Amino acid sequence: MTERKEPTYIFSDKQVAEKSEIARRFLDTRTRLNETVDKADNFLVKRFYNIDHNTYLEGALPAKYKELMGLVASACLRCDDCINYHVIQSYRLGVTRAEQEEAINVALVVGGSIVIPHLRRGYELLAELYA
Amino acid sequence: MTERKEPTYIFSDKQVAEKSEIARRFLDTRTRLNETVDKADNFLVKRFYNIDHNTYLEGALPAKYKELMGLVASACLRCDDCINYHVIQSYRLGVTRAEQEEAINVALVVGGSIVIPHLRRGYELLAELYA
Amino acid sequence: MTERKEPTYIFSDKQVAEKSEIARRFLDTRTRLNETVDKADNFLVKRFYNIDHNTYLEGALPAKYKELMGLVASACLRCDDCINYHVIQSYRLGVTRAEQEEAINVALVVGGSIVIPHLRRGYELLAELYA
Amino acid sequence: MTERKEPTYIFSDKQVAEKSEIARRFLDTRTRLNETVDKADNFLVKRFYNIDHNTYLEGALPAKYKELMGLVASACLRCDDCINYHVIQSYRLGVTRAEQEEAINVALVVGGSIVIPHLRRGYELLAELYA
Amino acid sequence: MTERKEPTYIFSDKQVAEKSEIARRFLDTRTRLNETVDKADNFLVKRFYNIDHNTYLEGALPAKYKELMGLVASACLRCDDCINYHVIQSYRLGVTRAEQEEAINVALVVGGSIVIPHLRRGYELLAELYA
Amino acid sequence: MTERKEPTYIFSDKQVAEKSEIARRFLDTRTRLNETVDKADNFLVKRFYNIDHNTYLEGALPAKYKELMGLVASACLRCDDCINYHVIQSYRLGVTRAEQEEAINVALVVGGSIVIPHLRRGYELLAELYA
Repeated sequence: MTERKEPTYIFSDKQVAEKSEIARRFLDTRTRLNETVDKADNFLVKRFYNIDHNTYLEGALPAKYKELMGLVASACLRCDDCINYHVIQSYRLGVTRAEQEEAINVALVVGGSIVIPHLRRGYELLAELYA
Repeated sequence: MTERKEPTYIFSDKQVAEKSEIARRFLDTRTRLNETVDKADNFLVKRFYNIDHNTYLEGALPAKYKELMGLVASACLRCDDCINYHVIQSYRLGVTRAEQEEAINVALVVGGSIVIPHLRRGYELLAELYA
Repeated sequence: MTERKEPTYIFSDKQVAEKSEIARRFLDTRTRLNETVDKADNFLVKRFYNIDHNTYLEGALPAKYKELMGLVASACLRCDDCINYHVIQSYRLGVTRAEQEEAINVALVVGGSIVIPHLRRGYELLAELYA
Repeated sequence: MTERKEPTYIFSDKQVAEKSEIARRFLDTRTRLNETVDKADNFLVKRFYNIDHNTYLEGALPAKYKELMGLVASACLRCDDCINYHVIQSYRLGVTRAEQEEAINVALVVGGSIVIPHLRRGYELLAELYA
Repeated sequence: MTERKEPTYIFSDKQVAEKSEIARRFLDTRTRLNETVDKADNFLVKRFYNIDHNTYLEGALPAKYKELMGLVASACLRCDDCINYHVIQSYRLGVTRAEQEEAINVALVVGGSIVIPHLRRGYELLAELYA
Repeated sequence: MTERKEPTYIFSDKQVAEKSEIARRFLDTRTRLNETVDKADNFLVKRFYNIDHNTYLEGALPAKYKELMGLVASACLRCDDCINYHVIQSYRLGVTRAEQEEAINVALVVGGSIVIPHLRRGYELLAELYA
């Protein structure tokens, strides 16, 4: 079995929030809503969150590529919150802007023009993060 | 701009087809149907195929990770043909089985249990290719 | 043929709106927009609304379970408005919070982590309704 | 209110089945399965089938363009049976092959490369019908 | 926290397979492919299967309604394998045919006519199981 | 090969924005975000935009029906931005309100009640444009 371990982040959430207003608002809302979910203490939700966390650890694939895969999945399934999350995580792991754009290109070609409104908003976040 | 170039394949389609019966049937059908599409000579379809081809070239991201991103997108959008295609392409580029499984895990967690029937069929192909 | 009849609601929309600010805003917008749709008087839209209404009546299955099924469908197809609607309808029919959470769990597991942003917002509504 | 009326078909299902083996097998299976559905005599299913039928009648838009819209919707939602159905209906209404291809192009661009396996199979049917 | 426990099945998989040829073929393929997945022994897949199993246990909601919710989710996300699975599980738990049809109606209305090809195949299975 | 050419618009974006506040806000945001995308100068995104533009030109099918097909695809894939865009483009090409409603009906029946929240918002835009 491949060993899994926590990746090393180059930037903290706080640094991301200071760099990008879009990221800051997203992270604040996410934190606030996750507190509501945590308070509910639902057994299966907690287990799902746990699997979700484990999926993106360093393993056979470097964490940064798995975050970009999460970004591709999020963009072709068209979820702005999920796109924001994986763009930020990828940024925190040192992914370059060109790498982020290439991942989004995969989602654009696989998912089609219906992805474009999400790509536009994703590029706004990229512009702030990589300014 | 990032330069793009054709990736170097370790295995040919022919070698893949000799190794796996599932792959052979998939590639045969795909070739036969693509001939029907080619014969139609539709301008926009040809341009779309061209963009599609360009998306997975070596670039800012190594081709193998982009094929795995194509696999993640295919699995979370639940398209068996597309899963077969990207599993085969990844295999041809030297991706290990453990790496393929981790990419599929991202799709499973993002896309949910509705992905499982496709994961099962994907694992059957993996078992033949990596036997 | 199974007889269909209107379910008995324990709470009115007005009571729901007084209990939850999220519900109030949702119901107000929905009412306002439905007036625009009604004014258009489109024959097929009216017939679709009619079938839609009939689907959730008491029948072979109790109405409360059908509202929860509507919630599962809404959550795994990821529509916040539809989630709000079925959470509210279920609440009006006396569904407990634990029952709502278990229905959402089905959607989470079937639909995957892409459902989570909607689950978070759904839990915020649940927190207000069951406070 | 726009008046609705049945469109005039240039070809019957029987003629279509004689022209294309793919169409014949599709229509046979569809007829057999619809008999099973009819036998069940489910009230809401019958009403849904009725709305469905009404949607494609001649109206403000000519029936042929609505069948092509059904084709676009089917292709971007990736349902082979639905694609077959609307390709056949469009053919029966005198739609040309070039028109069918342009409708499929809209679905390809909106829906992305995930549509391609369905486009390939659709082109196989087109090749038989317009031989 | 709601206690979870295994539901009591009225019929075994074997009895289902004897009653319906469609069910037998589905269960055989599923068993065979799951063996391939089990052999791979992927940590996250096993944990996902475990959560999936837990989701449908008796809890705040009776298991039979959760299986029907799984059916609704499967039908509106349009996965034949998943529909077969939840129709069979619901049948094994004593769900009546009328109840299965009402659950499918929710999926039909929420998910639209794109669900119909799956509904047709689902009705074929229902016809065999409830013969 | 069918010749393609630019369609003749009856109304400019500016006229649309003066007629409808919803349209004005949508077009402003779209313009602003497209500038961000343009600045990034991503090769594949530009080529995708180019194919996208070509898809809706006058061809075998009149541009107005292709815009309506884009509307159907957008509505059944449930993208508000895309719906707004194609409603506006159709309006600019002289499509009547009755024609727009019939196209949306196709999306409603194919895509189901999950389309309704988008239909409601689409009708609000229609009401402003055709006031």
